[in-house]
Amino acid sequence: MDDLVQRVLAGDRSALARVMTLLERDDPAGIAVWQALYPRTGRAQRIGLTGPPGVGKSTLVTQLARHYRQQDQMAGIVAVDPTSPLTGGALLGDRVRMGQLATDPGVFVRSMASRGQPGGLAAQTAAVADVLDAAGMDRVLIETVGVGQEALAVVGAAHTTVLVGAPGQGDEVQALKAGLLELADVLVVNQSDRDGAPALAAAWRWVIEDGASHSPDTGWQPPVIETVATTGEGVPALAAALDRHRAWLADGGGWERRTERIAGERVLRALAHRLLETARRRAAASGTWDRLIADVAARRLDPATAAARLAAAAADEERPPAPAG
Amino acid sequence: MDDLVQRVLAGDRSALARVMTLLERDDPAGIAVWQALYPRTGRAQRIGLTGPPGVGKSTLVTQLARHYRQQDQMAGIVAVDPTSPLTGGALLGDRVRMGQLATDPGVFVRSMASRGQPGGLAAQTAAVADVLDAAGMDRVLIETVGVGQEALAVVGAAHTTVLVGAPGQGDEVQALKAGLLELADVLVVNQSDRDGAPALAAAWRWVIEDGASHSPDTGWQPPVIETVATTGEGVPALAAALDRHRAWLADGGGWERRTERIAGERVLRALAHRLLETARRRAAASGTWDRLIADVAARRLDPATAAARLAAAAADEERPPAPAG
Repeated sequence: MDDLVQRVLAGDRSALARVMTLLERDDPAGIAVWQALYPRTGRAQRIGLTGPPGVGKSTLVTQLARHYRQQDQMAGIVAVDPTSPLTGGALLGDRVRMGQLATDPGVFVRSMASRGQPGGLAAQTAAVADVLDAAGMDRVLIETVGVGQEALAVVGAAHTTVLVGAPGQGDEVQALKAGLLELADVLVVNQSDRDGAPALAAAWRWVIEDGASHSPDTGWQPPVIETVATTGEGVPALAAALDRHRAWLADGGGWERRTERIAGERVLRALAHRLLETARRRAAASGTWDRLIADVAARRLDPATAAARLAAAAADEERPPAPAG
Repeated sequence: MDDLVQRVLAGDRSALARVMTLLERDDPAGIAVWQALYPRTGRAQRIGLTGPPGVGKSTLVTQLARHYRQQDQMAGIVAVDPTSPLTGGALLGDRVRMGQLATDPGVFVRSMASRGQPGGLAAQTAAVADVLDAAGMDRVLIETVGVGQEALAVVGAAHTTVLVGAPGQGDEVQALKAGLLELADVLVVNQSDRDGAPALAAAWRWVIEDGASHSPDTGWQPPVIETVATTGEGVPALAAALDRHRAWLADGGGWERRTERIAGERVLRALAHRLLETARRRAAASGTWDRLIADVAARRLDPATAAARLAAAAADEERPPAPAG
């Protein structure tokens, strides 16, 4: 284990891949390596990118990594593959598109499936980002699809959150009002050479300014960057916006607040996972589990009441037993 | 509260809407009504439909509801809106498309946002389905987008799971092999009047037959139904497949097994929610929370170790205290 830790800290690619595989399996050896690496993290800027399918996120991430390499910075990419069984092939093609970056020692790409992560996708994505951080990456780009709870949990563990859209994706402005402003630090209109892009960018800017006039002044107004990821146009402007956001976080103390918020969310997730495993194990061992589930299935008991009884039983396991009577 | 319970059981639409709103807010009054209704549930066939955006799920659900109305059956629809801030307008348009169904007393439609559900989307979707079930709906159609963990948790609470695809959505066959077979009870190729639809349906059938030859015989082979939701073509065939699946579940005892599996998942979710809330409250009250989070943010402590300490503290709350010393 010490050997794996040292090799990750030295940036050894096969060690990185090995630890990530162990983490994806919730393997105790992987968790031990991650715990040993955790004190060596905190240096990389974590950048979360999300948006609907088809807006060009993967191409944009590839171009950003290329940009960072030209500046002699190391870049890690965590691509959370939605593994839609119906559209799942897309990301693999995107990985191929990375071309020479795939063999660049200053870039490390990891795809993660969004199914079958026993410890939860958000927790494991954050742990993989920790490994890249400890290995010396300057930037860790975390790419996911959509803005459901799952995607939000993934990108919410980033210092800087980027929302990517493109013209022709529906009623963006209306929806933007519904909750995007509180989330995005940087907005990207990709495919900005297409019809409708200037109008979309203008509408987004209007919504942001309108929102800013109604909400407390945080000192950061999300910029709207126009890009054409396929040609790289606008990518330097996006990189500059990401730098500005990092500098703003560092100068105003927002970095610490954000780091604490991320830490809080990570602890809560780990706690939920642990409590649930304990409760399930305990109930299964006592036979309570099967009885309660049969009662819920037969409508003799509702799920909330069953959960309360299991919680009481699980509590015994986390501390020494009380005396009988 | 008793009044609300009685009105839901009588199918009163304003009472249904009221209870659902309370449930969405995790309001204790709503939870109490749901607990009182729970023993009166279990009659409706719950049908979960999922698939990527743009394949015509909402139109298909509308046509299915129309079909059931023609057979004098009551149909409830729970539409889980992905509320993508970038494409969020779509579902609203689909609701408008329902036309006369919107005023049909035998149909009840509820849209749920996938953000901001304090008790978790899957738990609240299941509770809303319970309310529709208790109100006498024969079928409850639960529509969601994608097949990430969140969407799977939502449709996993159904008796019958339908996966909807359409030609031209990428490398469907390859992805299908990755995990669809274990999930879907019925497959739909919608937009079957388009190029590529017969090839897609043929490929899906091949994958299913290939999978069946390698897996234990459960007695159910998922049919592939071709539909054109916009015209209603193929909808009676889909409804017949859903009936066959229900009959198969009922005859072979699969209904009970599935009901128990769903009950187990619901109890686990309720348990996780409860344990987490208890742990968070307890830690906040003692000041432990702030101290541990600061340590995790400063990299003096990793999230898993912090969670273990919080779990031990939370255990005290679920049972009477042990004597000091």
